[in-house]
Amino acid sequence: MISEIQELIKEVSKLPTLGARSARKIVLFLLKNRNKNMTFLIDKLQEAKSTIRSCKICNNLDSGDICSICKDEDRDTNSICVVESVEDLWVIERSQCFKGRYHVLNGLLSAIDDITPSTLRIPSLVERCVEGGTKEVIMALSLNLEARITSCYIADQLAQHGILISSLAAGIPIGGELNYMDDSTISVAFQGRK
Amino acid sequence: MISEIQELIKEVSKLPTLGARSARKIVLFLLKNRNKNMTFLIDKLQEAKSTIRSCKICNNLDSGDICSICKDEDRDTNSICVVESVEDLWVIERSQCFKGRYHVLNGLLSAIDDITPSTLRIPSLVERCVEGGTKEVIMALSLNLEARITSCYIADQLAQHGILISSLAAGIPIGGELNYMDDSTISVAFQGRK
Repeated sequence: MISEIQELIKEVSKLPTLGARSARKIVLFLLKNRNKNMTFLIDKLQEAKSTIRSCKICNNLDSGDICSICKDEDRDTNSICVVESVEDLWVIERSQCFKGRYHVLNGLLSAIDDITPSTLRIPSLVERCVEGGTKEVIMALSLNLEARITSCYIADQLAQHGILISSLAAGIPIGGELNYMDDSTISVAFQGRK
Repeated sequence: MISEIQELIKEVSKLPTLGARSARKIVLFLLKNRNKNMTFLIDKLQEAKSTIRSCKICNNLDSGDICSICKDEDRDTNSICVVESVEDLWVIERSQCFKGRYHVLNGLLSAIDDITPSTLRIPSLVERCVEGGTKEVIMALSLNLEARITSCYIADQLAQHGILISSLAAGIPIGGELNYMDDSTISVAFQGRK
C-alpha cells in the first residue's frame, strides 16, 4: 500500500465512530469513486471550511460571526438554553419545542481534561444573561456526573444575579418500556410522579 | 442547520459503514477542528485524488499507470492471484504468503447489478495469462454464491488454454472454535481432512 493511501486511511480513522477497518473501506470507496463521491466530498468539505464559523454570542455553527438563531428577532430573548454541543442544539431545534436562544458549551467541566469554566465560556454566558436581562436559563445537559457538576456550577454563578434556573425533566422516555429502564431512572420517575 | 452543513452531512453519510448519526458526529468533529483535522483531511484527500490511479494491468490502486507489484521484477510472473477488491489484495500482501502478481476484479459477476465479464475485465485477464505464459491462477475469492459463479466462469475461460486453476482451501479458521462454525464449514472441513 503506498504512502498516500496509508496517510489518508490514518487521517480518516481519527474521525469519531470509525476504526481502522471502516477507514480502509471508506478510503477504498472514495478511491474507486474518485470522479464522483471523492470530488463532491472534497468540494463540500472546502465549502464548509471556508463558510462555517462559531457564533460569537452562543458558539453555534453557522455562516458569519452571529448565527441565524441569535439574529432572529422573533425568538424569545428572555430564555437561554444551555447545551453541551451543537449536535444537542440540532436535536432541540428538530423537536421545535423551544423558541429562545442558546449557549453551546462545547464540552463539560473536567479537571482531568483541564476544561475550566473559561474554556466553556461560562463567564461570557453569565455576562450575557445579566446584560441581556435573561429571565430563565434552561440547563439541557445529559444526566451524567460531569454534566451535573457543570450544571451546578453554572446555576451557582447565575443564582447570584437572581436568574431562574431550570433543568429538563427526568423520567421514562415516551415509548420507553419499564423493564428496559435502569434503577435510577425508575427511582427518579417515581419521585417526580404527578 | 445551514445548507453547507446539511450537504456535507449528506455527502459523508453516503460513505460505507456510516449512517446519518455517525455522519453528523463526524461533520461536527471536523467543524470543531477546522484548522487541524479538517485541513489535514482535505489535503490528504486531494493528494490521494491527484496521485492514485488504477493499475492498467491488474486494477490495483497505486501512483502511476503501472502499480509497484506489476513493476516488481523480483515477483513471480508465473502465478496470478485473482481477488475481488483492492482490500483483499492488501489482506494477502499483509500475510506475506504470496509473491506473484494479482488481478483485481473490482466486483463479482451479477446479472441483477448488470456486472458482466467485461465489467470485471475478465477477457483482459485471460489475454494477460495467455500472452504472459502464466502457469497458475489462484482464485482467492470469498466463499459465497456470486464468488463461486465468478470463479467457475474464470476457470472455464482459462481451462481452454491449459492454465492450472486453484482455489484457497476451505475449512476451520486457525484459532476458530468448532462450536461457532456453521454446518457447511464443518462439512467442508471433514471432506478436506488430511
